[in-house]
Amino acid sequence: MQVTLISYTNNPELVCIQAGKVCYSPHGIKQIQKQPDKEQSGIFLDKIIRMGHLSVIEHASFSFMIEGISRACSHQLVRHRIASYSQKSQRYVNEKQFEYITPPSIAAHSSVVKTYNHFMEQTMEFYSELVAQGIPKEDARFVLPNAAETKIFVSMNGRELLHFFEKRLCQRAQWEIRAAAEEMLDLVKKIAPYMFKTAGPGCVHGSCPEGKLSCGQSNEMRKKYKNSSYKESDL
Amino acid sequence: MQVTLISYTNNPELVCIQAGKVCYSPHGIKQIQKQPDKEQSGIFLDKIIRMGHLSVIEHASFSFMIEGISRACSHQLVRHRIASYSQKSQRYVNEKQFEYITPPSIAAHSSVVKTYNHFMEQTMEFYSELVAQGIPKEDARFVLPNAAETKIFVSMNGRELLHFFEKRLCQRAQWEIRAAAEEMLDLVKKIAPYMFKTAGPGCVHGSCPEGKLSCGQSNEMRKKYKNSSYKESDL
Amino acid sequence: MQVTLISYTNNPELVCIQAGKVCYSPHGIKQIQKQPDKEQSGIFLDKIIRMGHLSVIEHASFSFMIEGISRACSHQLVRHRIASYSQKSQRYVNEKQFEYITPPSIAAHSSVVKTYNHFMEQTMEFYSELVAQGIPKEDARFVLPNAAETKIFVSMNGRELLHFFEKRLCQRAQWEIRAAAEEMLDLVKKIAPYMFKTAGPGCVHGSCPEGKLSCGQSNEMRKKYKNSSYKESDL
Amino acid sequence: MQVTLISYTNNPELVCIQAGKVCYSPHGIKQIQKQPDKEQSGIFLDKIIRMGHLSVIEHASFSFMIEGISRACSHQLVRHRIASYSQKSQRYVNEKQFEYITPPSIAAHSSVVKTYNHFMEQTMEFYSELVAQGIPKEDARFVLPNAAETKIFVSMNGRELLHFFEKRLCQRAQWEIRAAAEEMLDLVKKIAPYMFKTAGPGCVHGSCPEGKLSCGQSNEMRKKYKNSSYKESDL
Repeated sequence: MQVTLISYTNNPELVCIQAGKVCYSPHGIKQIQKQPDKEQSGIFLDKIIRMGHLSVIEHASFSFMIEGISRACSHQLVRHRIASYSQKSQRYVNEKQFEYITPPSIAAHSSVVKTYNHFMEQTMEFYSELVAQGIPKEDARFVLPNAAETKIFVSMNGRELLHFFEKRLCQRAQWEIRAAAEEMLDLVKKIAPYMFKTAGPGCVHGSCPEGKLSCGQSNEMRKKYKNSSYKESDL
Repeated sequence: MQVTLISYTNNPELVCIQAGKVCYSPHGIKQIQKQPDKEQSGIFLDKIIRMGHLSVIEHASFSFMIEGISRACSHQLVRHRIASYSQKSQRYVNEKQFEYITPPSIAAHSSVVKTYNHFMEQTMEFYSELVAQGIPKEDARFVLPNAAETKIFVSMNGRELLHFFEKRLCQRAQWEIRAAAEEMLDLVKKIAPYMFKTAGPGCVHGSCPEGKLSCGQSNEMRKKYKNSSYKESDL
Repeated sequence: MQVTLISYTNNPELVCIQAGKVCYSPHGIKQIQKQPDKEQSGIFLDKIIRMGHLSVIEHASFSFMIEGISRACSHQLVRHRIASYSQKSQRYVNEKQFEYITPPSIAAHSSVVKTYNHFMEQTMEFYSELVAQGIPKEDARFVLPNAAETKIFVSMNGRELLHFFEKRLCQRAQWEIRAAAEEMLDLVKKIAPYMFKTAGPGCVHGSCPEGKLSCGQSNEMRKKYKNSSYKESDL
Repeated sequence: MQVTLISYTNNPELVCIQAGKVCYSPHGIKQIQKQPDKEQSGIFLDKIIRMGHLSVIEHASFSFMIEGISRACSHQLVRHRIASYSQKSQRYVNEKQFEYITPPSIAAHSSVVKTYNHFMEQTMEFYSELVAQGIPKEDARFVLPNAAETKIFVSMNGRELLHFFEKRLCQRAQWEIRAAAEEMLDLVKKIAPYMFKTAGPGCVHGSCPEGKLSCGQSNEMRKKYKNSSYKESDL
């Protein structure tokens, strides 16, 4: 998997801080833009996020390229609807040499992974055969597996990213989308550290939302994402 | 493929007509609900739709169950973001006897379809073997093909449905999602004939939006969806 | 203020329960529809809501008419974006006899309310004068106050309603939108008691999100909305 | 009115072009980023927009500060739901010296404008009196007029902007929101000329959607926005 941060709203934190100040200030943008020092502003941003005033961080948009994930993973990803996607099309792109993803649970067993690789080669052959016989690519792809590699360009705003991280950094999320979420978080934290200070799976903001299905690692998660809690006393 | 209209907003057209009247009337809902005869109201609804005042038909929601479609098709379907989905999960449901969809272009050749069926049986066997060896279902599914059958529960409002029909009734849409769109349109037209009178592919509302890639059948489409055009003279 | 539940998705809870079952079941809709008894299903719905699987209750849509609220209130209401609105237009409807809302804090002082009423009458006169002098209604309305009564037709799905209640039942929400939220909750609870069992302001689901600005009544709120908490032990 | 483009996605056109290429290319982002010359890319972007493949331009987000508009205007603006807003709050900001907007139809008549100004001064006085008597700002604002100036921070992506321009550049849109749309278009055209080449009111893309209520100036509009038409022959 390779995740690249392609672009984002210029000065994402500053923009959101200014937007936040518009709500409570009688002043115009010129005066609002005469900012206090950077750290103080970051503290303001962190505070309004912890109070749940999340609309403010919608003004920053982040665009990623995600490559080397399975179509199983992308099918989950695109279910996040407050986001924009451009995905490699199996209707238009010839997949006779498709790359594929091997889950760690399969990679761990050398005998299983051998059969798995063989299966993928056979599938490529069958796909190529279908295309050679005149079956349109959009129909030949019916034999392609969930494992087939896809590339997808994704844009999300700061608020949706926080929500995405809450759901997909959970230990019960599929391993692949969790790995993507971790890489995305690493990338945006470098650009907007205050905006994503509270990012983490659901359990770090309260009790585990998974109930009986809990992974039982809430404490470890709270340590790992140690700046994420919403304590009243922090405000 | 089997499409079932499971439920919808009670009195969908009447509700949208009332909503439309709220915009232009000084009266309260009690007076607005003293409606003129049904046909006259339908004409009012048709008129505001042709004028593009589509927010009014957002008040009617329609819920469908779509069964017997491929995961290739559902991956396209869920890209419509102003909608709600609940889909059979390959992470939780055992797929050792998965059903699969055979594209007409493959079904048309008896020799091809035979190899296709054989490939699907082999895939089932391999999937079962992986599960038997302790690979979690969410990883074993990496070998499942796009052809694998899925079931999906979908809700869309009237406005999104019109948009969905515009895109997916187009001859260049994938055959399977186009067939789903046709069945959905048949079902909602029985319940809300005025709301969906203008439903049709993009070309029936203007020139073909596909340019050089046009199917060349715009005239046939205009005949098929003959009530759909937005002529100024109709208003 | 008058809130009317105009329409909603037929059998809202049953529909959402069926949608929820589609996710985890290998069966088709026919078998899923052979439901167990109603109460057992309600418990299933309540459980998946407490686990945060809220997409399931998006399949139920509820349409309300809200009358007798101020434009100040409606300006807040329409900020909820996952919803549909049709509002009485001040561009098209003559407002020379506009109704207006009197906040309780003003109504409490007889001398203040007298001046308030007088101000409103003067405003009506000035508005009428402007219209009489040929100023278009869309410009004459510039003198109309926030207090001016509006009527608005609103549709939201179950998930957005839960979110709306969380924000707007808070004691720090404006009194008018909070009153609207309370009436809306009363109406939908009669139709879908399990779906809205957990409805309540943010503080009933965890610690107060308002921090130092807290109303200090979280305990009272937890008593009032006593079925709303998301305790792990409940799951 | 003052509209400022505060920030936007870095390299907005390049980002969208790359996203567009992901859909049709077997290549990874590294190869896609080895772009042809800028003009050729712009032509590619213009072409996919005219074909209606608008999801691609969702990857570019633009953030504006709009100052000096009325609350009447902002109430219309926030009805665009695929956007983010942060608005000066009349619940928190003291409005005893509120600025106000004077419609041109009122400004044109010196006697009317005099009465209008007088009315606004009286309103300020009454508002101040209410606040002085201990009425909370959120209730005192009930006397504030639609004319009261507001400041609002707005972010929209490229696709929503095209839609916004289509609706709000129409001669039948309220004059104030039309003026805001014109300023916004001027600002983004400098940054992303190919992305907004087709921007214009509905009538420039087909027949006037307003029917009998048409302003009758479709031809003038087509001249003014002369690059906007979607002719098949252009593709």
